[in-house]
Amino acid sequence: MALTTGQLARQLGFELHGDADVMLRRINDLRKAGEGELSFLASPKFLPYLRDTRASAVIVREAQLADVPSGTTALVARDPYLGYARAAQLLHPRRRPAPGVHQTAVVDARAEIDPSAHVAANCAIAAGARIGADVVVLAGCVVAEDVVIGAGSLLGPNVTVLEGVTIGERCLIHSGAVIGADGFGFANDGGEWVKIPQIGGVVIGNDVEIGANTTIDRGAVEDTVISDGVKLDNLIQVAHNVRIGRNTAIAGCTGIAGSTTIGERCAIGGGVGITGHIEIADGVTITGRSFVSQSVPEAGSYSTGTPLQPTAKWRRNFLRMRQLDEFAKRLKKLETKLAHSDDEKC
Amino acid sequence: MALTTGQLARQLGFELHGDADVMLRRINDLRKAGEGELSFLASPKFLPYLRDTRASAVIVREAQLADVPSGTTALVARDPYLGYARAAQLLHPRRRPAPGVHQTAVVDARAEIDPSAHVAANCAIAAGARIGADVVVLAGCVVAEDVVIGAGSLLGPNVTVLEGVTIGERCLIHSGAVIGADGFGFANDGGEWVKIPQIGGVVIGNDVEIGANTTIDRGAVEDTVISDGVKLDNLIQVAHNVRIGRNTAIAGCTGIAGSTTIGERCAIGGGVGITGHIEIADGVTITGRSFVSQSVPEAGSYSTGTPLQPTAKWRRNFLRMRQLDEFAKRLKKLETKLAHSDDEKC
Amino acid sequence: MALTTGQLARQLGFELHGDADVMLRRINDLRKAGEGELSFLASPKFLPYLRDTRASAVIVREAQLADVPSGTTALVARDPYLGYARAAQLLHPRRRPAPGVHQTAVVDARAEIDPSAHVAANCAIAAGARIGADVVVLAGCVVAEDVVIGAGSLLGPNVTVLEGVTIGERCLIHSGAVIGADGFGFANDGGEWVKIPQIGGVVIGNDVEIGANTTIDRGAVEDTVISDGVKLDNLIQVAHNVRIGRNTAIAGCTGIAGSTTIGERCAIGGGVGITGHIEIADGVTITGRSFVSQSVPEAGSYSTGTPLQPTAKWRRNFLRMRQLDEFAKRLKKLETKLAHSDDEKC
Repeated sequence: MALTTGQLARQLGFELHGDADVMLRRINDLRKAGEGELSFLASPKFLPYLRDTRASAVIVREAQLADVPSGTTALVARDPYLGYARAAQLLHPRRRPAPGVHQTAVVDARAEIDPSAHVAANCAIAAGARIGADVVVLAGCVVAEDVVIGAGSLLGPNVTVLEGVTIGERCLIHSGAVIGADGFGFANDGGEWVKIPQIGGVVIGNDVEIGANTTIDRGAVEDTVISDGVKLDNLIQVAHNVRIGRNTAIAGCTGIAGSTTIGERCAIGGGVGITGHIEIADGVTITGRSFVSQSVPEAGSYSTGTPLQPTAKWRRNFLRMRQLDEFAKRLKKLETKLAHSDDEKC
Repeated sequence: MALTTGQLARQLGFELHGDADVMLRRINDLRKAGEGELSFLASPKFLPYLRDTRASAVIVREAQLADVPSGTTALVARDPYLGYARAAQLLHPRRRPAPGVHQTAVVDARAEIDPSAHVAANCAIAAGARIGADVVVLAGCVVAEDVVIGAGSLLGPNVTVLEGVTIGERCLIHSGAVIGADGFGFANDGGEWVKIPQIGGVVIGNDVEIGANTTIDRGAVEDTVISDGVKLDNLIQVAHNVRIGRNTAIAGCTGIAGSTTIGERCAIGGGVGITGHIEIADGVTITGRSFVSQSVPEAGSYSTGTPLQPTAKWRRNFLRMRQLDEFAKRLKKLETKLAHSDDEKC
Repeated sequence: MALTTGQLARQLGFELHGDADVMLRRINDLRKAGEGELSFLASPKFLPYLRDTRASAVIVREAQLADVPSGTTALVARDPYLGYARAAQLLHPRRRPAPGVHQTAVVDARAEIDPSAHVAANCAIAAGARIGADVVVLAGCVVAEDVVIGAGSLLGPNVTVLEGVTIGERCLIHSGAVIGADGFGFANDGGEWVKIPQIGGVVIGNDVEIGANTTIDRGAVEDTVISDGVKLDNLIQVAHNVRIGRNTAIAGCTGIAGSTTIGERCAIGGGVGITGHIEIADGVTITGRSFVSQSVPEAGSYSTGTPLQPTAKWRRNFLRMRQLDEFAKRLKKLETKLAHSDDEKC
């Protein structure tokens, strides 16, 4: 795609300062951008790069207009980072392959595939599956019985979607993701595990993104629910009966244990562990690598974790962590003693 | 499947209180269950839901008989959760697709596939592989040379089983699992890594369940061993030469480093990290997100981890963790000083 | 492969003590090795096993020559572990399947596949892909548009390599790895996430190994870079714009957030979490399960984490971690008070 600065300004509501006819083909970093490239200033720490940029155009806040080099067209936005996202969507639209089912795809006669959908090589689409308009299913995907995939969604290569899972519209499911495998449920019979059939499903809303090799298990009895606008990064584990609220974003390597409910608009960092059967309120931020062992009833930012130290020093502090409770008691005792000795003096 | 309350009681040894001819088609939650549905009370905290349930039948302990609504048939079990598991297995048996090899599956002429086995679309089964009776290999699986899969086991879609791996009977391997990739072994030659060929295998016992996208590496020289009845959740890493004892269950996102031995009947939570070359005794529980940095020689429950705090408060405490050893020494000094000043007084 | 002790000594520069004509077919453990098997002593703690070994030959340091049983040929190396790696490479070379493209592989007419390359069953190779000499692409792989794979590299089954990714020579990419999925980048528009197209690539150097189900995301604008000789274990997440320096090795389940730079020759343990936008110097060791929340500007070994404790004891210490800052202040107060009361006495 190529657009002029004028077209971009009109389509995205930017205020244009400079030449409206500069042709833009690509987004690039302030330091690397050159002719035909659009850049942006999202953080003031890159201001020196703005002053030296050779980009043909830049998206900036009004306050930075004076720092835009002459010869560079400025596009003023209230939020340049958001402006960059929207401009990049226009300049770099996702390639949508042509409609049609590849001859090597194995599609059950009882599956319904919209004529506008694309099903690539070596896919397997089972009976009862319904693939909506403009859906793209890339090579090697397996779509099991009775799966529903809403209009405009895209499955990267080698995605697996199991029986009865429902995926909304405009979702993006990256390679290797597994949606609808059995939840981890067993009863114990004298030391042996007895499998509990996992008969719930997975319901995924609209505009959801699911990262590479992320796993979302089907519910034990009821469904696992991923609401509209949720964004999940790579290698995340979502256990059975978890419910994630609208527009919550979760970074990679996070694990969420069974039956936990996460609110709307939460921001959960990478490598976080969230225990099962708890509730996290709307608007909660959990910083990276935290361990959430109980419900979080109020919005706010929460953290756990210990600081990085040279290993030799850490070894000494590490052992002391086993003595914290003892320290607390000894400290209390000293305080009492000292208070008492003060009393004696008086 | 549909069964009457009487049939269920007979087959599973429940004591029947009520109508023996109620037809049951499905398990459901106490709150949602209706006609033709079976529910259960496993935890006393759901007792109010039992009293209001509209389930056609419920599995309860004898003590809860009085709380079962009239019109609902009660099935008394010593362990209603276990009863639920067994009843769900009867009402919701896993669908076993018909025997046969799909025409798009690529099966080497030197592979042996039992006529009762099912091999789905786009699978690749290499020379020397032996697929036992009633095995199900779903779409997109790759079964490499000389792999053995025992009777009744099931591979979900897109599973990879590498050369020489042995899988026992009645195992359930979920989508995206990779069994038998190379262990992570290198020697260092002046800063460069020299690969150590990983020539061991992976031996998986009977009745093992392996979660989606879980990885189990082959041994460096000897085998990696997963014993009978082990249950592994999703996104678990089992490194080379690990040995996991019978009926141990491990929740998602846990990583086990090389050559570690885990005993029988252990329960290991999600997101746990277990260092290499250690031994964990039989009957050990490790709570979620713990870090196991040394051997655990005795049964019991073990934990690590720091509590979730508001981020601002955490930042202050976080820095203090670097001073613990110093605190310990200062505390000791104060105690000595105070003891000394007491002496002086005497 | 079979080689005599004499051939092995010549090829790898070992000093031969004993029979040069012993035929060796396999590496084995000191305790298990028998006729035709080669073993090694890397750590003095296994010295008793050396004295009792029935291996036909062993690789040892000169100092251990006296401990080699008579009847066993000794091969003296300065670093027996490295010697073992090199000997194992000779005795157990990776099987390279015959050149050719399997008839079920779907190869776009605009892809270039070297005649010496092997492309196995059910692969999909897209337009513009270039597969170099002696490359092996095992079953079920998807290689997207314009991917370049250098000579001698191997993709295990079910690997996914997305648009425009470049992989160097002699790389080993294990099953289920996903290279080049979208980075996790969104701008926020009044609570809703707006996707930022990820237009960077992934550039992987030579001699890189990437573990099973590991994910490496494409850059947002510039490339994600994995340098020559890097070794990544299983289930690792490498976010967009990460740069990993030469010969760095990272163990399983580690997550690296976006735009972080890791130096050369680093050794990063399993289950480590590394925050985004930081720099880790060359030669840094991070022990397993650590959390790296800020840049590490100097070589050395670094750690975080809390020790494993019986759960009951941990619960008490756990709560105390929330009081550390308060403890520090109370301790300081006591010290001041006591110093003051000393002053009074004087």
